[in-house]
Amino acid sequence: MGRTSDGREKMLTTASELFRERGIAGTALMDIIDRSGAARGSIYHFFPGGKAQLAREATERSGRELGAMIANLVTSNGPVPALGILVDFFRQQLLDTGFEAGCPIAAAAMESGESVEARRAAGESYAAWEAALANALWQHGVPQQRAASAATLAISAIEGALILARAQRDSSALDRVRAELQRFGEQLLREPY
Amino acid sequence: MGRTSDGREKMLTTASELFRERGIAGTALMDIIDRSGAARGSIYHFFPGGKAQLAREATERSGRELGAMIANLVTSNGPVPALGILVDFFRQQLLDTGFEAGCPIAAAAMESGESVEARRAAGESYAAWEAALANALWQHGVPQQRAASAATLAISAIEGALILARAQRDSSALDRVRAELQRFGEQLLREPY
Repeated sequence: MGRTSDGREKMLTTASELFRERGIAGTALMDIIDRSGAARGSIYHFFPGGKAQLAREATERSGRELGAMIANLVTSNGPVPALGILVDFFRQQLLDTGFEAGCPIAAAAMESGESVEARRAAGESYAAWEAALANALWQHGVPQQRAASAATLAISAIEGALILARAQRDSSALDRVRAELQRFGEQLLREPY
Repeated sequence: MGRTSDGREKMLTTASELFRERGIAGTALMDIIDRSGAARGSIYHFFPGGKAQLAREATERSGRELGAMIANLVTSNGPVPALGILVDFFRQQLLDTGFEAGCPIAAAAMESGESVEARRAAGESYAAWEAALANALWQHGVPQQRAASAATLAISAIEGALILARAQRDSSALDRVRAELQRFGEQLLREPY
């Protein structure tokens, strides 16, 4: 452990950054080595499965981290304010990186070929995020089926707005989606069930 | 013209297919040549700018085609049913390709590096789609600013749901977003402005 697991973590963090900026296919192993400052041989030492393994693990880790964040946000703030905070979080990351860093698991969702396991991890992450939000809506009185579809709308809209904002080099899409989701969520919780 | 422009068109169509399935960085020029059945030298004859030019032109073409489709759908059916038809269209393409073919311009939106021009074309396409939908909502009585943000929500939600569905190998996300957008749109048009 110690230095060894630090090196592995560092490499995974660097890989995550590059994947979300350039996509998985657009990231070469050498880019990961160069940016992480790791020794050339260490990548196959830590990740014998190469880029496919790095992509899967990076996606799983980002999916879990964001899933925990969503679960904490909905518990602490309620589902509707949580969505606003989540949008603000992604918005800040886009602005801080010159509109390069979108959703860290969307890159895997768009992959095929050698990264099918990363794509599967992305699908599972989305399902977990949807479930966390749906559960919070249900806790606030929304019937389960409606809570599930409203949660999917919200997660999809945020993912889509990240893509629009990234392509447009402008956070307006995120701002508009944020405003619509607040209105949508407040209306949803007011509906008589 | 004639055979020459046919060859160019064929290559562009093949490139579009591959980009949406594998991403731009994940598509090699040889893949485009192999699938299109074109002569090896012809790609630089038709596209002297290579993959960057192909990516930009393919994205522009897909963006215009879908933009025309959206404009026609909202005119013929009204904005809310149009959204349902648009989701069904994308849903069918996902199902027909084993969940490989998502939105044809999302691949460009996720790119960086050599494909920045394709990404810009993606951003412009999204803006045009948003405007077409916003205009239709405004025609149906929604105030302009609200029409703009509601249109962005709808386009973002569909783009995001395509990513979720592709990652999850399951069209449920699209089905749920379709249902929520119908409800959202009907409510929007009923609001007293």
